Amino acid sequence: MSDNTSIIDVNKLYEQLRSQDRRALAKAITLVESERRSDRLLADQLLNNCAAHQNDTLIIGITGVPGVGKSTFVDRIGVQAIENGHRVAVLAIDPSSKRSKGSIMGDKTRMDELSRAENAFIRPSPTSGFLGGASRRTREVAVLCACAGFDRIFIETVGVGQNELVIDEISDITLLLLLAGAGDELQGIKRGIMEAADIIAINKADGENLAASKRAASHLKNAISLLPARENGLKPDVLTCSALENTGVSNILDKIERIAITLTDNGQLQTKRAQRNVQWMRQRVEDALLERLHSDKALTSLMNDVSEEVRNGERSPIEASISVLDFMEKDPETPS
Amino acid sequence: MSDNTSIIDVNKLYEQLRSQDRRALAKAITLVESERRSDRLLADQLLNNCAAHQNDTLIIGITGVPGVGKSTFVDRIGVQAIENGHRVAVLAIDPSSKRSKGSIMGDKTRMDELSRAENAFIRPSPTSGFLGGASRRTREVAVLCACAGFDRIFIETVGVGQNELVIDEISDITLLLLLAGAGDELQGIKRGIMEAADIIAINKADGENLAASKRAASHLKNAISLLPARENGLKPDVLTCSALENTGVSNILDKIERIAITLTDNGQLQTKRAQRNVQWMRQRVEDALLERLHSDKALTSLMNDVSEEVRNGERSPIEASISVLDFMEKDPETPS
Repeated sequence: MSDNTSIIDVNKLYEQLRSQDRRALAKAITLVESERRSDRLLADQLLNNCAAHQNDTLIIGITGVPGVGKSTFVDRIGVQAIENGHRVAVLAIDPSSKRSKGSIMGDKTRMDELSRAENAFIRPSPTSGFLGGASRRTREVAVLCACAGFDRIFIETVGVGQNELVIDEISDITLLLLLAGAGDELQGIKRGIMEAADIIAINKADGENLAASKRAASHLKNAISLLPARENGLKPDVLTCSALENTGVSNILDKIERIAITLTDNGQLQTKRAQRNVQWMRQRVEDALLERLHSDKALTSLMNDVSEEVRNGERSPIEASISVLDFMEKDPETPS
Repeated sequence: MSDNTSIIDVNKLYEQLRSQDRRALAKAITLVESERRSDRLLADQLLNNCAAHQNDTLIIGITGVPGVGKSTFVDRIGVQAIENGHRVAVLAIDPSSKRSKGSIMGDKTRMDELSRAENAFIRPSPTSGFLGGASRRTREVAVLCACAGFDRIFIETVGVGQNELVIDEISDITLLLLLAGAGDELQGIKRGIMEAADIIAINKADGENLAASKRAASHLKNAISLLPARENGLKPDVLTCSALENTGVSNILDKIERIAITLTDNGQLQTKRAQRNVQWMRQRVEDALLERLHSDKALTSLMNDVSEEVRNGERSPIEASISVLDFMEKDPETPS
């Protein structure tokens, strides 16, 4: 990954982060995203130091289907947060990056205003391939950003199915962007909405869409009032906005800040963050286990052999997997 | 899970499957979806037998965002396949089932006609929680269905990001459903479309949508002609249909059958199936590794202890995960 990791002084890098050095942050992220074993040990040391400095940072997850206007919205709300005196980081979870190399935030011009702001840090999605991996890396990058004094972190993801759950796990507060008029779509994800969002904003409430957006918000509010509350005792608010015309966005940010205060006062935010740390720990253990498959030479060699046999139809996938697991039980040595 | 697994005779169950016994198929699926350790061994024996009988079955993946009309489409194309002389199974991958218990195919009435057909078998999504798990179980259920003589299997999933890649891995041929007029949405997933779909069908091409749908199909065809082909050498076809009015659906099925013949003649289908078996094997090994975390008593107890310490802020997630991994290296006994 980085050419100069061999000369990284973790303590110095940590001090630089604490002094809000942007170049140090970029370097730290490269370190944490590195796949090299030696980098991993340094990254763990750094993350261990940084993990203590998270409490003043609010992580806001923003989700919604493609086309709902997420990038423009994040641009607007990020600039607003900076005007309110915050330092803003924008990250993305892009589970599709495995093959397509990521479309989220590929188009940087979509966050035109924010990307020019002094107090903003925009980081495209990590390159790791699987959903668990992507969310863990995003979580670790958020820890670095918080340590470097970015106290409002917006994490953007495509919102359907599993992604909504991931964004809820990784964020303090989750915002779902919807569009009016997409009646069928609302149906399909209604249950997920109620479970995963603290706020719902109907975007593109402008021009001839304005009336329909207000109506949709009103209907959704009614529907939500009939449903049980979220785990944290709250029901999602429904607001309207136009990111394009920059109307309603500052109102949404105010609402987010008020929800954060409520959840802090009743202890829910602390509970959620503690739970997040537990999940982070478990994810790290699971990742390390799977990594063994790819770093143990004897095992890799065996996997390649049986893969070839399965590919040629000489062995069934079931039998082959059992033989690999038998080998791991008999020869449980860790890779050097 | 099932009360009567202790008296399951796997060889008999296998014979019943081969004789196309539907009750045996339901029983076999329950066995394969069971989390019980004793059931797993029997399930593996059964799957090992069934894995040899896959070649006459074509697996068709159908993906598209919520609201695109997947259920109605599957109902129509399934009935058409039965009229063509096939036996049809319908499965779903629903990665959101972790929390929402699944919305896909929850509404059975959406497949009204198909669900009454003699030669159809409809199975809602498996209950396992994570994306990898859900896709593996769906794959294994498909193996059972194929063994029971269902020679056309339709697998339905919500299509955004990771899900599109999963459906492509699990299917012989992948169909993407789109709607005309959702211009922004097309943009967002365009790259993924080209990589994951063998056929693109623009649904709801009826009434006042008809002209717009034809235009969208024509534009998409032009765009695709400028792009590189898929791995299998083909570029996705673009067709229009109305599942509601049942127009264009049989044409799409014909196209799917022709693509299957082309891919068989040039060997691509066999290559893809061999690759799928390799992935199945690897997924089984990874799942078994992760399972150790949850079945080894000493390890579970340690995980619970350090989770509590992380939750209380006594230990950092980094340090706690390292201590669990250290324990596993020192005490690599497999669970009894």
